[in-house]
Amino acid sequence: MAESKSTNITWHAGQVTRKDREKVLGQRGVTLWLTGLSGSGKSTVAVAAEHALVERGRLSYVLDGDNVRHGLNKNLGFSPDDRTENIRRIAEVAKLFTDAGVIVLTSFISPYRADRDAARAIFGEGDFVEVFVSTSLETCEERDPKGLYKKARAGQIPDFTGISAPYEAPERPELVLDTGKLAVPESVAALLRYLDGKGYLSA
Amino acid sequence: MAESKSTNITWHAGQVTRKDREKVLGQRGVTLWLTGLSGSGKSTVAVAAEHALVERGRLSYVLDGDNVRHGLNKNLGFSPDDRTENIRRIAEVAKLFTDAGVIVLTSFISPYRADRDAARAIFGEGDFVEVFVSTSLETCEERDPKGLYKKARAGQIPDFTGISAPYEAPERPELVLDTGKLAVPESVAALLRYLDGKGYLSA
Repeated sequence: MAESKSTNITWHAGQVTRKDREKVLGQRGVTLWLTGLSGSGKSTVAVAAEHALVERGRLSYVLDGDNVRHGLNKNLGFSPDDRTENIRRIAEVAKLFTDAGVIVLTSFISPYRADRDAARAIFGEGDFVEVFVSTSLETCEERDPKGLYKKARAGQIPDFTGISAPYEAPERPELVLDTGKLAVPESVAALLRYLDGKGYLSA
Repeated sequence: MAESKSTNITWHAGQVTRKDREKVLGQRGVTLWLTGLSGSGKSTVAVAAEHALVERGRLSYVLDGDNVRHGLNKNLGFSPDDRTENIRRIAEVAKLFTDAGVIVLTSFISPYRADRDAARAIFGEGDFVEVFVSTSLETCEERDPKGLYKKARAGQIPDFTGISAPYEAPERPELVLDTGKLAVPESVAALLRYLDGKGYLSA
């Protein structure tokens, strides 16, 4: 029977706890917060890690621009306030998924330390893992998969992270992955080793 | 190998699909959108249904005021615009969970037809199931578990649904549960029968 430690719940007898869901899934909920420059490989690594996890029978879910910017955060622009609210909402959603027992991978540049620290602050101990995708600006700009750096250098995109807006590198990330040096499978292996070593891959 | 039907995804080879996640879970993702008056039994039924599902090894998750109003939607008040935005965000989050393969139960009064229809509209066919918890105002007011009706009748709560603000009943809900007539286990059984009958309980 599920145990509830909430005090203000009287008529919710038998409430399911996070532990119960984690037992069903055979894993522990966690948010892997990937941060890094545009083109650093965040999405590639996130998607490949999700694939590796699902192949191992784990439930993983990627939150990225594709499924968040056009939905939940479609009423936000790119002003400083909107950027902060963007990250805040993503963190709150990731927290809900984590509470559901899911291994979440978020893939957003999230360039400001204050926003990432605010995100971390809403999570419980061990539920938030900051993954710095530390690929150098030079490498990202060489890759330029969407041609954005070229446009930014030409002054066609204002406030472009790394060019005309700051990227504040994490000071104490739990994990650092430089995809300029590591191949994607190596980055994924590092992530999975971390998860396994910390006990996230069993309930 | 995962199949992707997206056309603008080039460097995400091997992207995990919803189907892959559903296979891991042995179920199909869906949102059961519970709507009804305060005290109608939405939360009781949602929590009991989550319990029954998790006991059967399924992954279910309840979105309700407790985990949404104090987190994701803590910057929203109770103005008409904020109420609409409240429901919009909840729907978007439920959609993400549904895409992750989870059986979501949302428990919000959601009194306006337009807001619920807007919620339904963002979901794919069969992913949104409107559950009208149709318990009568008289029964809800008799129960008055939080003493809110008493306060509303005394004019201490403005715009209280059913008293001083409208509740627009669903016109074509997929399911109707009157907890004034059905015991909680009967309501849960009806929900599970629906899910089973429609094939949501297998991948």
